[in-house]
Amino acid sequence: MSEVSMPMMPPALRKPLAAASLLALLAGCQATPNAELRGTGDLGVVVERATGSLAVVDTSHQRILERVEGLGDLSHASVKFSRDARYAFVFGRDGGLSRVDLLTGEITHRVMQSGNSIGGAISQDGSLVAVANYEPGGVKIFDSETLEEVAEIPATYRDENGQAQRSKVVGLVDAPGNRFVYSLFEAGEIHMVDMSEGAPEVTRFSDIGEAPYDALIGPSGRYYIAGLFGEDGLALLDLWHPEAGVQRILPDYGRGEERLPVYKMPHLEGWAMAGDEAWLPAVGRHEVLVADSDDWSLVERIAVHGQPIFVMTRPDERQVWVNFAHPDNSVVQVIDTESREVVATLEPGEAVLHMEFTPRGEQVWISARDSDRVVVYDTRTLEEVARLDSESPSGIFFTDRAHRIGL
Amino acid sequence: MSEVSMPMMPPALRKPLAAASLLALLAGCQATPNAELRGTGDLGVVVERATGSLAVVDTSHQRILERVEGLGDLSHASVKFSRDARYAFVFGRDGGLSRVDLLTGEITHRVMQSGNSIGGAISQDGSLVAVANYEPGGVKIFDSETLEEVAEIPATYRDENGQAQRSKVVGLVDAPGNRFVYSLFEAGEIHMVDMSEGAPEVTRFSDIGEAPYDALIGPSGRYYIAGLFGEDGLALLDLWHPEAGVQRILPDYGRGEERLPVYKMPHLEGWAMAGDEAWLPAVGRHEVLVADSDDWSLVERIAVHGQPIFVMTRPDERQVWVNFAHPDNSVVQVIDTESREVVATLEPGEAVLHMEFTPRGEQVWISARDSDRVVVYDTRTLEEVARLDSESPSGIFFTDRAHRIGL
Repeated sequence: MSEVSMPMMPPALRKPLAAASLLALLAGCQATPNAELRGTGDLGVVVERATGSLAVVDTSHQRILERVEGLGDLSHASVKFSRDARYAFVFGRDGGLSRVDLLTGEITHRVMQSGNSIGGAISQDGSLVAVANYEPGGVKIFDSETLEEVAEIPATYRDENGQAQRSKVVGLVDAPGNRFVYSLFEAGEIHMVDMSEGAPEVTRFSDIGEAPYDALIGPSGRYYIAGLFGEDGLALLDLWHPEAGVQRILPDYGRGEERLPVYKMPHLEGWAMAGDEAWLPAVGRHEVLVADSDDWSLVERIAVHGQPIFVMTRPDERQVWVNFAHPDNSVVQVIDTESREVVATLEPGEAVLHMEFTPRGEQVWISARDSDRVVVYDTRTLEEVARLDSESPSGIFFTDRAHRIGL
Repeated sequence: MSEVSMPMMPPALRKPLAAASLLALLAGCQATPNAELRGTGDLGVVVERATGSLAVVDTSHQRILERVEGLGDLSHASVKFSRDARYAFVFGRDGGLSRVDLLTGEITHRVMQSGNSIGGAISQDGSLVAVANYEPGGVKIFDSETLEEVAEIPATYRDENGQAQRSKVVGLVDAPGNRFVYSLFEAGEIHMVDMSEGAPEVTRFSDIGEAPYDALIGPSGRYYIAGLFGEDGLALLDLWHPEAGVQRILPDYGRGEERLPVYKMPHLEGWAMAGDEAWLPAVGRHEVLVADSDDWSLVERIAVHGQPIFVMTRPDERQVWVNFAHPDNSVVQVIDTESREVVATLEPGEAVLHMEFTPRGEQVWISARDSDRVVVYDTRTLEEVARLDSESPSGIFFTDRAHRIGL
């Protein structure tokens, strides 16, 4: 493990001070754009996978403030925020965990914490950052201020021959009570780690289904739902009643008996809730599914443009926005949640990978990787508001996630 | 109208610079606590009504960072935040509207915009601040960066003699689409102002019930509900279907035929939702009411310690916290939303006025006015975590409200 810890001195102070830069420094402590005194509630980041960089963005003025480089392999990278909304924790595919100061643009800490990882989570109280690892399979937990390792929890299980094995970890989320929940791909298990008393306390749920590949937790942090690659249906754990174990819901959810060609398994990050309904991307089918969140019965299948990847609700729950797998990935569709009809089909660019709503939903930012741009729409008029240059943009994350359970 | 606009220079630069303070200034631009480069996601304010001051607080370390004075009459004052979570807009009872920089502790702008006002709202896009006025009755809308007046909308109606009158405005909230919604106390009307095209466009709903005294909007910004002082029941406007007009819901909600002594009408700010249920303070009775938010039928009455004032859900929806009117106002009760039983009775101090959860709900801050303190509890263990000295604290507001519809 290598760790780079940089001093917190403002960048202007590391260089010899010329009179001009001293004056500039005094003029409001804004010698460089990196050290601007500003609120962090309208900041966010765009992951630029080709260049291993983050673009720090300002959602009030739809602009890129600066770029942070040197973050390693950012394919499938995801980001969480500190509870003060100043620092971004970047989970790289290469096992790198970086802590980026959005105000100065500096990487304050960076740890190569595994060989291959797939995302992370921040604890309810903001003190801990957990990372899900493929290789070696398990979860590592770090102090969010220093990135010092607090705990390592190998994802062990016994295979059919009784041999101890380690499993890849997927679908890691935070849950109320300083808990983390995640799934073990090869083991077919869900584990819950309680960090509320300091030392990790692990509860295991076995035989939850074959090959969980991703998971989500609802906005209240009660329901943890894992998608299964190896069979149909979804595995549900009610965190208010862990003693009840894991149930299977939506038994038809999945690839079905026809074994449709699936270009990309849909993402389960976040949760599209509208009233009592959960909106889900169908697997392999050109459909968005609506389920009743009381009894998890299927309410409706809505025909859409392609195989859906992300299904996301505008914060006021009146619209659901959907992007699609290759070869239909230059399109985004907007569904009215009341009429359940597609009301708009937009073309932001080639290879749309992610969408992020501004906190109160007046705009949405969409990354079009192969067009090297991020497009911002007004969600009421559905008109384009801004277009930003970005090299191979993928995930977009805004700081209000710091304040939401499971995000 | 008087307006005071202060330059944005850091406080340290307004004084002669001694060598020591120059060095201090260079040491990370932190010459004074007022100019600290920091994230604003864990900030908040406590309204100190007796001294007309705000305590700026840090929820990560449970401490008061500084005090901002000179804000006028802060009885019943409320606060909204700019979308970058840097500025607090303080709505004073004396008609003063102040914009406070949480990072520097300065009042950047202050306007005496009416003789008597009762709260305000910030538009979905953050560009507009609206204030509800008693005297003269109406709404004024200001640019959120300059506090320049953008629009004045008198709350006019015709009385039973056909005479034009102005009404007090109450229950002002923001709604999606850069709209504001509010109620007219004497007129018995709800008005909706659409600011999405620049000039205000007002839609009026009359005969909504006698003497609306307060209102709330749900977390998705769909349902606007006004409480009625003059009769029983609540007035509901579905903003997805304004053409359907205002309906009456919960017909028994109110003081009832017995005309119970009511020590204080409950507050309807915010909305306690848990699953599909809305939790409401009963009027005059020692009860918290649970209603089904699908059909607004009454599901249950839960006996509590006194006449409830605020009924607030912990962000994970597992607990509801309740405070009470005089003479039962030294107590806070915690209800488990699943069992619907009171699970704890806490005594934070004398005259508990307000409660505010940290964004992900691990702690709650409670103001005890007559004990001159704010008490912070761990919501899982229900143990006291911190106790802060504050003179006559009332409302507590954290910056994550910047990102929530209706807050």
